[in-house]
Amino acid sequence: MSPINIAIVGVGKIVRDQHLPALAKNADYRLIAAASRHGTVDGIDNFKSIEAMIDAVPAVEAVSLCMPPQYRYEAARTALAAGKHVFLEKPPGATLSEVADLEALAEEKGVSLFASWHSRYAPAVEAAKTFLASAAIRNVRIIWKEDVRHWHPNQEWIWAAGGLGVFDPGINALSIMTHILPRPVFITSATLEFPENRDAPIAATIAFSDAEKLDVAAEFDWRQTGKQSWDIVAETDAGGMVLSEGGAKLAIDGKIVHEEPEQEYPMLYRRFAEIIKAGRSDVDLAPLRHVADAFMLGRRKFVEAFHD
Amino acid sequence: MSPINIAIVGVGKIVRDQHLPALAKNADYRLIAAASRHGTVDGIDNFKSIEAMIDAVPAVEAVSLCMPPQYRYEAARTALAAGKHVFLEKPPGATLSEVADLEALAEEKGVSLFASWHSRYAPAVEAAKTFLASAAIRNVRIIWKEDVRHWHPNQEWIWAAGGLGVFDPGINALSIMTHILPRPVFITSATLEFPENRDAPIAATIAFSDAEKLDVAAEFDWRQTGKQSWDIVAETDAGGMVLSEGGAKLAIDGKIVHEEPEQEYPMLYRRFAEIIKAGRSDVDLAPLRHVADAFMLGRRKFVEAFHD
Repeated sequence: MSPINIAIVGVGKIVRDQHLPALAKNADYRLIAAASRHGTVDGIDNFKSIEAMIDAVPAVEAVSLCMPPQYRYEAARTALAAGKHVFLEKPPGATLSEVADLEALAEEKGVSLFASWHSRYAPAVEAAKTFLASAAIRNVRIIWKEDVRHWHPNQEWIWAAGGLGVFDPGINALSIMTHILPRPVFITSATLEFPENRDAPIAATIAFSDAEKLDVAAEFDWRQTGKQSWDIVAETDAGGMVLSEGGAKLAIDGKIVHEEPEQEYPMLYRRFAEIIKAGRSDVDLAPLRHVADAFMLGRRKFVEAFHD
Repeated sequence: MSPINIAIVGVGKIVRDQHLPALAKNADYRLIAAASRHGTVDGIDNFKSIEAMIDAVPAVEAVSLCMPPQYRYEAARTALAAGKHVFLEKPPGATLSEVADLEALAEEKGVSLFASWHSRYAPAVEAAKTFLASAAIRNVRIIWKEDVRHWHPNQEWIWAAGGLGVFDPGINALSIMTHILPRPVFITSATLEFPENRDAPIAATIAFSDAEKLDVAAEFDWRQTGKQSWDIVAETDAGGMVLSEGGAKLAIDGKIVHEEPEQEYPMLYRRFAEIIKAGRSDVDLAPLRHVADAFMLGRRKFVEAFHD
């Protein structure tokens, strides 16, 4: 099979850090164009809009959409309507309803839609899932605390209504949680902390339960300085599990049982090629549904103003 | 077929106003028990909890769950696990995720789950749907404005986090909108107004769009005194449509074309019996998904405190 001609839309930090290196190493793809209001990619044709790119480069077969979620729907619809396969960066959209609409369009057009959750491909996630499947779980704690000034400096869109705030990293935790727990969970209560000068939360505490009344709690905080935490901790009858460093490292009772170099984006692109070849889509809305549920069910609390 | 033995859980205002009269007139059902922390129904066995009722009255085949949405999941799961058909008052749950979980359990148990949307059964809704299907729609305006002090006096749960506030009536408008519009819509922006002393919004303005860029806007307000509005207005090439009084009356270019007495709950119970006989469920999450999307995407604005 000849390589898939792919284009990148929305050239920013995540594209330079992750998408371009992953594509460069994958023989399934040939990157032939990019479209972005501001950024460009060296060595290929660049356009100001996805419409201009699709008109000028009909050879494009697939597009990766990496702009902020507020702008993804239009671009995805344009690409799907033109018969292109679509890779959606996480989160797949600004609303659940628009993603459901895109899913229906992809099916109608016979192309593949991929709602990517990169953290599910962190090295130790599958090992954690296997461990939890064979244990009786007593409780689960998700601690996702990072310094927004370091990881998202001056990214204004992330603070706008619809930008999700601390749920932007938090959804990574939720994408792992929904993948490794044995049963679906749902939120029973939540508190969202909004800086008084911002439209998105800077912190959240969430309680989940499931059909067996499993006790799952998550703490998301963007005000963490010093040591950063991206950990999922479970107490079980088979020992204490710590899945740390965003899913990179797994320890059982303090002993490291799994640690490998991170390969998330290479694996995402492998998965995208796989669903294109199989002629199907992969759109799991569970992580975004939990975020929407947290906003709907959560209590709002106002906290100190945040300045970058 | 002998009547379905049904029980009511959560005996409050909506049960006395709607469920009991509808059941009394429908030969498909025999009401044999009720469970409620506070209310009772005359002439049948009453229990304090659904568990006690299910244990004591094994003949119960179906239950209507009418307690506030925050408490529905547990009761629904108990009933479904015991092999009972379940009628969920609107909204079907406090979160989308818990309703998805119930849907899976109903399928596993081979019983029917019904997420009821009573406003879809308002007399003129089908006529409005037929009219819009044959017209080119220019824009749609939803105006849902009522006096919360009159309609929900001292209902504290409605103001709690998860109680949905003005979306409690607003979801009725959304259930009609999602039924009568020709294509799925999604929210593009929203503003939610929270009284400074409450955890749920008292008003909301929402902009929707769809694949054809249709302009749809909704205004929900709980501070309306004087004339109340539950109207959906559309400008089309076939004339101006006004679906008013919560779906009871349809006018085209000012001329009333459809007006009938309201029969919502009788029709809901007819539908519930129909899906029980057909051995299937009816769970359309679109209205609740729009509410969750509005909370996730919407800008929060604080307004004057509200006192009952």
